[in-house]
Amino acid sequence: MSYSIAFLGPKATFTDLAVSRLFPDDAKIPMATIPECMDAVVDGQADLAVVPIENALEGSVNITLDYLVHEVNLPISGEIITPIQQHFMVHPDNDIPSFVPDVIYSHSHAIAQCHKFLHKELRGIPCENTTSTAAAAQLVMEQPGKKIAAIANELAAAEYGLAITRPNIHDFSHNHTKFVVLSKSDIQYENCLATRRGDKTTLMVMLPADHSGALHQVLSAFAWRKLNLSKIESRPMKTGLGNYFFIIDLEMKMDEVLIPGAISELEALGCNVTLLGSYPSFMVEKSVDIAEIHSKMM
Amino acid sequence: MSYSIAFLGPKATFTDLAVSRLFPDDAKIPMATIPECMDAVVDGQADLAVVPIENALEGSVNITLDYLVHEVNLPISGEIITPIQQHFMVHPDNDIPSFVPDVIYSHSHAIAQCHKFLHKELRGIPCENTTSTAAAAQLVMEQPGKKIAAIANELAAAEYGLAITRPNIHDFSHNHTKFVVLSKSDIQYENCLATRRGDKTTLMVMLPADHSGALHQVLSAFAWRKLNLSKIESRPMKTGLGNYFFIIDLEMKMDEVLIPGAISELEALGCNVTLLGSYPSFMVEKSVDIAEIHSKMM
Repeated sequence: MSYSIAFLGPKATFTDLAVSRLFPDDAKIPMATIPECMDAVVDGQADLAVVPIENALEGSVNITLDYLVHEVNLPISGEIITPIQQHFMVHPDNDIPSFVPDVIYSHSHAIAQCHKFLHKELRGIPCENTTSTAAAAQLVMEQPGKKIAAIANELAAAEYGLAITRPNIHDFSHNHTKFVVLSKSDIQYENCLATRRGDKTTLMVMLPADHSGALHQVLSAFAWRKLNLSKIESRPMKTGLGNYFFIIDLEMKMDEVLIPGAISELEALGCNVTLLGSYPSFMVEKSVDIAEIHSKMM
Repeated sequence: MSYSIAFLGPKATFTDLAVSRLFPDDAKIPMATIPECMDAVVDGQADLAVVPIENALEGSVNITLDYLVHEVNLPISGEIITPIQQHFMVHPDNDIPSFVPDVIYSHSHAIAQCHKFLHKELRGIPCENTTSTAAAAQLVMEQPGKKIAAIANELAAAEYGLAITRPNIHDFSHNHTKFVVLSKSDIQYENCLATRRGDKTTLMVMLPADHSGALHQVLSAFAWRKLNLSKIESRPMKTGLGNYFFIIDLEMKMDEVLIPGAISELEALGCNVTLLGSYPSFMVEKSVDIAEIHSKMM
């Protein structure tokens, strides 16, 4: 199977890095926003979308959860967890020990993730936000005469021919981002370069109007069946303060007895339950050789 | 008592509107960011801070929760829920029926909240983001010769002398934002113009490392005591994907039996529990006369 993949672009974003591990040989279509990625699958422009859904530091990507629940009906067909490693990079003309930039460009999250490094090593140098880390790298590549630098990933350095002068400048070594694969049909992961961790099932649960104590009942339906929850997350229903729906991740594949039993019990309690997907979970254990990934992208 | 209040500025933001209801006669210090508001109280520059914590459409304000849990130790001393009403405004020189702006300025959330109006009435006109709705109003005031408009609240229109040509252009009429009062000591609400709704207690609960089923146990400790939860929200611990803490709101004041009993039970289960505050809850029922608020601000 060969797929066309809508992903949160431009080229060389962390989403692109995730796609290159899951689908190293497939056609990629960069999109400007997360909703556009999902719309591309709904409209048939792409077979699947890959978008970020959660970061270990920032929490859930709300636009992904909200658009998935309120706007489109696209099953989750897979997930991949990748380490987030940020590097300091400059135009190769500026790759000299004495170089100090006038401005550092990156996405606001990347700047926040490198706060300690910036505070300690480059105090007082202004940081400017770009729409993605890759856009910052592109900006540095396009202006060799300016004293500027970017914070971005290794793929962006390779893509735009920049020199990484300070690798791994992120404050937390355990920072990861989880991306989901969204598709109308089942996806095959034949050429996947990541490690398979097991299966997951994601449910969206809306509590009945008078929900005092209802969440406890919901969790009981899973607890007495010994179904492991790896995540529970509340998001606003957009119908007024205090009205939430819950996203629940179960550490197993959809079965014919336990999960359907729990869903029936929740519905009997007056909850509205939607299956958002049952899918394989992948993890990137260590960095694959960058040059290899880059050569496949050409 | 007279307080000095650090709030998320500039003048005439929705936070300013909330402050004007809670503390109509007190001294206000606008701050550029939410962390700066909290730091001002920690450093003794201000007696209290007022910052947004949750919006009915966007969900929790993550920077507020995260800074409160990870960076500062400031009890929640009150909360106020205010309706969010957005208006379309222009420089009074441009207050003519045929006026069509070349650009519309506002905060990205306000632009999102008026999506249907903009799509229907002003399709194709570019929207530019500003750091606050008040900043958009100021920008329009400062450039009377330009064909520009702002989306902001009634306080900003009054503050910057703009003409509201289309009031209440927000898509959802039930949109509200909750703001919290943060202070080292108890706060008196003597001149408060909002309605008292009751009391709340907010707890932060960290589950033990092996937390499968632990959240269910946590909720049991509240459920069997018939303690009503009005909110449960997960946020990342920043120690790796899948590690969360939970913010729990109880619909009552801290007592001497039930809540301390629940906390002891949670601690016996291996949870780490922090009391974030026990405080009065206020609500703005309807708009107070704008001219009156504005005259008090002068």
